[in-house]
Amino acid sequence: MLAQQYVDMLSKKNIIRNLSEYAVGRGKEIGYENVFDYTLGNPSVPVPKSFNDSIIRLIGEKSPFDLHGYCQSLGIGEVRKAVAESLNRRFGMEYTMDHIFMTSGAAGAIAHAIRLVTVAGDEVLTFAPFFPEYTPYVNQTGAILKVVPPDTETFQINFELFEEMINPKTMAVLVNSPNNPSGIVYSTQTVKKLAEILTEKSKEYGHIIYLISDEPYREIVFEGVDSPYIAKMYDNTITCYSFSKSLSVPGERIGYVAVNPKCPDAEKMIVMCGQISRGIGHNCPSTIIQWAVSENLDVTADLSVYERNMNILYDELKALGFTVVKPGGTFYIFPKALEEDAVAFCEKGKKYDFIGVPADSFGCPGYFRLAYCIDTEKCERSLEALRRFVKEEYR
Amino acid sequence: MLAQQYVDMLSKKNIIRNLSEYAVGRGKEIGYENVFDYTLGNPSVPVPKSFNDSIIRLIGEKSPFDLHGYCQSLGIGEVRKAVAESLNRRFGMEYTMDHIFMTSGAAGAIAHAIRLVTVAGDEVLTFAPFFPEYTPYVNQTGAILKVVPPDTETFQINFELFEEMINPKTMAVLVNSPNNPSGIVYSTQTVKKLAEILTEKSKEYGHIIYLISDEPYREIVFEGVDSPYIAKMYDNTITCYSFSKSLSVPGERIGYVAVNPKCPDAEKMIVMCGQISRGIGHNCPSTIIQWAVSENLDVTADLSVYERNMNILYDELKALGFTVVKPGGTFYIFPKALEEDAVAFCEKGKKYDFIGVPADSFGCPGYFRLAYCIDTEKCERSLEALRRFVKEEYR
Repeated sequence: MLAQQYVDMLSKKNIIRNLSEYAVGRGKEIGYENVFDYTLGNPSVPVPKSFNDSIIRLIGEKSPFDLHGYCQSLGIGEVRKAVAESLNRRFGMEYTMDHIFMTSGAAGAIAHAIRLVTVAGDEVLTFAPFFPEYTPYVNQTGAILKVVPPDTETFQINFELFEEMINPKTMAVLVNSPNNPSGIVYSTQTVKKLAEILTEKSKEYGHIIYLISDEPYREIVFEGVDSPYIAKMYDNTITCYSFSKSLSVPGERIGYVAVNPKCPDAEKMIVMCGQISRGIGHNCPSTIIQWAVSENLDVTADLSVYERNMNILYDELKALGFTVVKPGGTFYIFPKALEEDAVAFCEKGKKYDFIGVPADSFGCPGYFRLAYCIDTEKCERSLEALRRFVKEEYR
Repeated sequence: MLAQQYVDMLSKKNIIRNLSEYAVGRGKEIGYENVFDYTLGNPSVPVPKSFNDSIIRLIGEKSPFDLHGYCQSLGIGEVRKAVAESLNRRFGMEYTMDHIFMTSGAAGAIAHAIRLVTVAGDEVLTFAPFFPEYTPYVNQTGAILKVVPPDTETFQINFELFEEMINPKTMAVLVNSPNNPSGIVYSTQTVKKLAEILTEKSKEYGHIIYLISDEPYREIVFEGVDSPYIAKMYDNTITCYSFSKSLSVPGERIGYVAVNPKCPDAEKMIVMCGQISRGIGHNCPSTIIQWAVSENLDVTADLSVYERNMNILYDELKALGFTVVKPGGTFYIFPKALEEDAVAFCEKGKKYDFIGVPADSFGCPGYFRLAYCIDTEKCERSLEALRRFVKEEYR
């Protein structure tokens, strides 16, 4: 008999994928360059040349066994060391390789982090708007994801509701800053207050509440925006990182778990990740990709297009009267729809080939997400479609 | 609080790893070339040149987005199609891409297969001797692994005990042929009889009993050995494959699940794998590695060293009076120890720098495994150590 929980998942409509498929299909009719497809968070800038150069050089230089052989179950030692040193250099941390576990991107990192600190029935809190994949990440471990409603004024944390919802079953809080879908970056003040509450509640409940910090957009922060390194502000932080966006290599599935050395049992938590892997069949990212990443830790793809596109869209949305908070990073912007039902709003946008995603599945109905990881030229051309959409439907 | 099940796993001694570490440590004292280290199943032949050539050419030819971008959640379509066609060509099957799901090696494949067809409390049967990692693969899903004792005469299946143990809770049977650790290949007769029993019991219990066939050693079969393609003989077969051994790329973590098209709901099972991935954070093997593998599906590393080494060891073991069944494939041989306690036997071997692994954790106490994926020259030199070991300890 097939496992019913996965059969059930099949019948749930994935609105993001449906809209993306619509956009691609429409592109076949009128030319994809004429479809303003803001559906998917797929990096639009190429991998840095140095990354591909590393791969080619490694093939020439390394023995085939070093290059393609089994690696240690926690990841290649030299690579973990290089990751730790890069983090220390950039954020003044004190990681060693014993605090780093290599994973299949942020998804793999979160899958390990949740299993590390929860058992069936435990609660994990996250903040709306949130990445919808958190639901299967958490629920398939047996833990329960609870979502704190958003503060739509700022898209920082709604602390009032958070303090109402946190309880002795809360074993972890899962945050994502810079945030998908809001584009907002948590301020130092926000993280500080969050850390204070977690510290106080950990004491009150008699167990550590871990902060699981999902940071795939860490490198995409816009000029002048306050972007604290979260683990620096709360000892019991498990940082989950992916190189997908910083290096534009989402298909290579590489990231890491980093446990703050000040967290009790930090080193033990990393070796536990190796045990968790045995059950989920993960066994590390590709070795050649680990080596290549380790040579490109302080490099990023040219991410400037994202800030440029953000400014173009933000200005136009404001001019058209949208309620929208200016993003501090990522490649998402998150305006309020012009009618209560964002699904209906996005449906109408199709008529103008302007395709955004309603945020119901992000825990924030009434809003929509635009993923502006597209060429700036196309972003500029989309404004005319947006203007017509707003004028003809809502004026 | 840390999840206790993974803490508990840390305290369990891993005898294979301990012996391997001993061998490496001893190598630092006397030179690794003088340690006859038969502990680990790590391929000893290099990747085929064509594989690395593919990577370099792909970097030059493909757009960075095709090469390193997100792939579809079931794996790259063209790669799945190429895998299906290769299997059809070689084994006369009728797979399409809709029957193939790309995974992180056989480990990832088994992790998906078990979740696909079991829920908590279901039983999965396997046959001793068996790969010890099956225990975490199965148990971490909530299902229960039960082990059918071995037929030590042939290391084919002990059908008498199998028929005693199979019961209405049995949802899947997990087989591994060519087998780690015995080196034995299941004959057509064995697989046929297994298929008959599964068909009969499926009918009797009113539910399909799936055959999960773990085949990382499929390409390492010795001359003249009968090696049926298992899925061809039982419709409800989920084949789990890894390229680790055939292409000597274990660090690249690539393999697949193939569901026999004759299995009811075969296509549905593949899309279910995509849902399972969401919870375990897998999201496909590396894209560049998927592309490179798809160009090297009918290629293998030069695997001839394994048969050469097998013959050298088999002849010597027989001459020394060991009870041993001649392997039909893999790079393992599985003799009976010269005393009841194979742990004590292997411990004594250390004195002669002849390092094998006792098979208690493989469900077959009293036997030991030699992983002869080493240079033939070293294999030949090891015979003198083996002879002294046997003579001085057991004559």
